[in-house]
Amino acid sequence: MNRPGTDIGALLAQQILDAVRALSPDGAGVSRPAYSDIETRALDCLSQIARDHGLIVEEDPGGNRWFTLPEHRDAGRYLVIGSHIDSVPEGGNFDGLAGIVAGLLVLIRARGRGLRMPVRCLAMRGEESAWFGSCYLGSRALTGQMTEQELGSRHKGDGRTLAEHMAALGIDTGRILAGRPQTDLGRIAGYIELHIEQGPVLVERDIPAAIVTGIRGNIRFRSVTCTGQGGHSGAVPRAYRHDPVLAMADLLTRLDDSWLHILQTGGDLVLTSGMVATDPARHAITRIADSVSFSLDIRSQNAEILTHMRDYLGDEMRDIERVRGVRFETGPEIPAAPALMDAGMVRDLMQAMARTGQEPFSMASGAGHDAAVFAQAGIPSAMVFVRNRNGSHNPREAMEIEDLMAGIRIISAYLEEAGA
Amino acid sequence: MNRPGTDIGALLAQQILDAVRALSPDGAGVSRPAYSDIETRALDCLSQIARDHGLIVEEDPGGNRWFTLPEHRDAGRYLVIGSHIDSVPEGGNFDGLAGIVAGLLVLIRARGRGLRMPVRCLAMRGEESAWFGSCYLGSRALTGQMTEQELGSRHKGDGRTLAEHMAALGIDTGRILAGRPQTDLGRIAGYIELHIEQGPVLVERDIPAAIVTGIRGNIRFRSVTCTGQGGHSGAVPRAYRHDPVLAMADLLTRLDDSWLHILQTGGDLVLTSGMVATDPARHAITRIADSVSFSLDIRSQNAEILTHMRDYLGDEMRDIERVRGVRFETGPEIPAAPALMDAGMVRDLMQAMARTGQEPFSMASGAGHDAAVFAQAGIPSAMVFVRNRNGSHNPREAMEIEDLMAGIRIISAYLEEAGA
Repeated sequence: MNRPGTDIGALLAQQILDAVRALSPDGAGVSRPAYSDIETRALDCLSQIARDHGLIVEEDPGGNRWFTLPEHRDAGRYLVIGSHIDSVPEGGNFDGLAGIVAGLLVLIRARGRGLRMPVRCLAMRGEESAWFGSCYLGSRALTGQMTEQELGSRHKGDGRTLAEHMAALGIDTGRILAGRPQTDLGRIAGYIELHIEQGPVLVERDIPAAIVTGIRGNIRFRSVTCTGQGGHSGAVPRAYRHDPVLAMADLLTRLDDSWLHILQTGGDLVLTSGMVATDPARHAITRIADSVSFSLDIRSQNAEILTHMRDYLGDEMRDIERVRGVRFETGPEIPAAPALMDAGMVRDLMQAMARTGQEPFSMASGAGHDAAVFAQAGIPSAMVFVRNRNGSHNPREAMEIEDLMAGIRIISAYLEEAGA
Repeated sequence: MNRPGTDIGALLAQQILDAVRALSPDGAGVSRPAYSDIETRALDCLSQIARDHGLIVEEDPGGNRWFTLPEHRDAGRYLVIGSHIDSVPEGGNFDGLAGIVAGLLVLIRARGRGLRMPVRCLAMRGEESAWFGSCYLGSRALTGQMTEQELGSRHKGDGRTLAEHMAALGIDTGRILAGRPQTDLGRIAGYIELHIEQGPVLVERDIPAAIVTGIRGNIRFRSVTCTGQGGHSGAVPRAYRHDPVLAMADLLTRLDDSWLHILQTGGDLVLTSGMVATDPARHAITRIADSVSFSLDIRSQNAEILTHMRDYLGDEMRDIERVRGVRFETGPEIPAAPALMDAGMVRDLMQAMARTGQEPFSMASGAGHDAAVFAQAGIPSAMVFVRNRNGSHNPREAMEIEDLMAGIRIISAYLEEAGA
């Protein structure tokens, strides 16, 4: 640990965060729309700071910015430390930006000190789904994974497509549509992303940072409908009821019981029904509902557990249908495969964490991140989480600079020891 | 059983039902608003038919109509056979009207045959809560139980108060406000109401009619709110969650389990959560809800079971609050005490049912009825249910005239044998 260095780094980190925040206030929090001029101005601001600190700045054909130490400019292979510059509307300043600040600080602190391998810092555009409905746009375009459907997705504000927004920034969308990566992926030896934790684990456990073991995949249903039979709330005995609300409660309680069992046997799982509604046009206090609809979001790092939960959900729906005379329809499933972080990088980062004087701690990421896109592109990837209060995607995000520096120290320690 | 008489009665019953239906179509079904001119025209129509069949017609100060055999006009005490003439908007033709038709037919069929006790038929106004938000208005005014609050309740269509609507029909609202009954209650020896069943019991059991043992009371909560803590659906582990939706599911499942237990031990209970909703302005598939609200309607004939369920609900909410770190708030309780039917009348009606050749069958009423108001006024009361498909309060109500006649035969048989 290098306390004096940490303090100077903390001042610089705060300076970068404040400078970018000042470019993107929206009254409530910050707004840095994906593929917008505000996003470009934020990237320009980072570029100026990077140049001021002796880094080389480059832009790839997808509009992302790369920052490099002069001595690494021509490196054949390098490690990328990156994250995204955009934010949700009325968002917080740290979600995304913290990871770019981390990359810049690792490079700036390495000047004159050297690193065991070449490193580039990457500031990506367009990670948040709030703008075009799809997420990881920047990293998907960069790695040649973007689909025509994504390019055609429309901005929630102005209705123009992502392709139009990209073209307005001078990005060659033909190249993206052709599935050509925006950089030579073969030169990327690994990807590390520092990000604020979006849950309460580090706050609850009083730990400043953690190594991420994997990014949870999910099974999602926007609207599961349970259809029963309406009727007078007083006049229909239990034996003749087909109450969809009690059937839904039964299903959610069974899923909750199963969740507890999986946790007790060491499995990774979270399960949420965030939206529930009977039909306001038809429901009444004295009426058995005809139907109820509810969302389901089931996540795990472990693909087998997701498969198990999909089967379990189907089995329990069939059983409740038999017992209660109702019918469940799940509608289309929106699946996302889990992305495991590279086991070797996780091990080395845990060791680096110990070398900084922190008790090594690892955890799953429940939210998705660009790191999953890099992992899916075959690039060994890893993440460092930094403690943060109040979740993310809101102006009350609260990361302490001290905790950010604890995360940065882990990456620096990793780069001082790990081989290429 | 008097088959030829039944057939003539069935024709007359159909004629009366059709005549009143013709006065109140609303496109979808029938609308006979409480304390309206349409209601008056329907009463006028009944009065004309009654006079045509030799009955005497009188109106009480509350605007209800009374039909009497000439020989019973000056009887000191009499049994009342009655029901309500109003309907809900887009309602069915049988809810209420069937009971008045029954009273008229009992009287008309008794001409020249005699009855063991004097009988009057009563057609009441304003039973449905659809118009002014309060129910049993006609019987509550008649028995001197109407409150100032009820008189001040506003019509859901025109916003004018019940008192204004009554005054427009020439009803003395001062007398009602003073709590004076609209007739001498001391002269009413008993009250019998025939009504379509609003649940599926008689259809499911293939029985044309039943004797009602009591009208279920209820504990109602329009909006129970469960407040937890919002958060990212993927990033918050189970141990740190305070998910109000799973807490609600847990509560409803516990109530459902308790319901099953009470039924298995011979208790009477129905339980409904007809309205459920997370906040559409804040909920999302990837967000743990901050809160969820849901209605509860718990009904039983047995006041002790209602008390037990109120206690059980409170206990389980406290337990779930402890276990899940959420908070339940029930808001105001809307209670209604159960109304037991008169045991002697129930017994005699069961015997009368047997004499008509029907297997005696009794059941609870889950819906409320004017009979509960008479019972609460200290008048021995009873009800006969008639089989009806598709529930009530909708145009698909489906009562067969043959079943109505089975119900009427029970009342006739009762009056041929029962003492005053």
